[in-house]
Amino acid sequence: MAAPVQFWFEFASTYSYLSAMRIEQLAADKGVSIDWQPFLLGPIFAEQGWNTSPFTIYPAKGRYMWRDMERLCAARALPFQRPDPFPQNSLTAARLAVAITSQDQRAAFTRAVYMAEFGEGHDISAASTLTDCLAAAGLAADFIESSQDPKVKAALFEQSSRAKDLDLFGAPSFVVGDEVFWGDDRLLDAINHALAI
Amino acid sequence: MAAPVQFWFEFASTYSYLSAMRIEQLAADKGVSIDWQPFLLGPIFAEQGWNTSPFTIYPAKGRYMWRDMERLCAARALPFQRPDPFPQNSLTAARLAVAITSQDQRAAFTRAVYMAEFGEGHDISAASTLTDCLAAAGLAADFIESSQDPKVKAALFEQSSRAKDLDLFGAPSFVVGDEVFWGDDRLLDAINHALAI
Repeated sequence: MAAPVQFWFEFASTYSYLSAMRIEQLAADKGVSIDWQPFLLGPIFAEQGWNTSPFTIYPAKGRYMWRDMERLCAARALPFQRPDPFPQNSLTAARLAVAITSQDQRAAFTRAVYMAEFGEGHDISAASTLTDCLAAAGLAADFIESSQDPKVKAALFEQSSRAKDLDLFGAPSFVVGDEVFWGDDRLLDAINHALAI
Repeated sequence: MAAPVQFWFEFASTYSYLSAMRIEQLAADKGVSIDWQPFLLGPIFAEQGWNTSPFTIYPAKGRYMWRDMERLCAARALPFQRPDPFPQNSLTAARLAVAITSQDQRAAFTRAVYMAEFGEGHDISAASTLTDCLAAAGLAADFIESSQDPKVKAALFEQSSRAKDLDLFGAPSFVVGDEVFWGDDRLLDAINHALAI
């Protein structure tokens, strides 16, 4: 039985979209299980002195990222749109992902949010977007109210604390045993490591 | 005839070591030519408000990079040592690479510098290291004096200006036609793009 791959994702993260759309098929092909771990990069970035995405703070890096995403999405036949504003406010989406306890439903919701955001250019802080994404995961519209549940808020806060303990600094990150792999470019390495330990 | 791949490297850059050690074989296998382009990241980082490597400024990112390099070097059977200090002062090495006009000799010198720095942990600002690297490229020890040539200094300064015009922000970067590919992870994409245009 292979070790699970923890998939740490931030809904505002462009490269997390790439991983979310392919991780289940890759993992299934290799017989590895995925543990979906939503978190917020905001608190981690704030500790580095950043108040927004590094792609906004460092314009040349941002221009490159958009072009790189265009190329990668084209190569993978994924739709791609640049959401406005960027980065999107991912707080409610992250709380909802935490509130969804079934891994299958959490995965379905997560994929739907990423597709709405980067495939269709929708605002993922809007209730209408989020209720559509909940529906894609088989959840009723009123599930959105769980984003106001103090226990859910605390659970997401705890995720950021766990991410910090894991020394994460960006998304997507993959945690397998004691090893961290950062970036969609390391997804296959993470899965292969899960098979090797 | 495939388009050439411009390989923009900074001697202090860890991931540039990975590319320098494999780019010629990959390019030869595909029938693509490599244009070796030394430059300094210091002036580009300074414009972003950084006075040293981002791996030093952002410790979690730095810790990850060292582990990532260990894993990648092990997988590629490359020796790996962490130079002290990091980042190394790459100014003289970069000037010498600019001064070497033969692409083959420039490539041989560049590989020797990276191997001394990250394979053997030597100080690449030391004259003894650099004269060994010059010897590996078939150049006499007194070639090191060209690093003080005003024309060479100006040529390296011009490289940083060209890098800025290309919107480069890190190393290694690969420029093929109008496309920029950043990072050792994109080396194959860059070579494949050279074959496609």
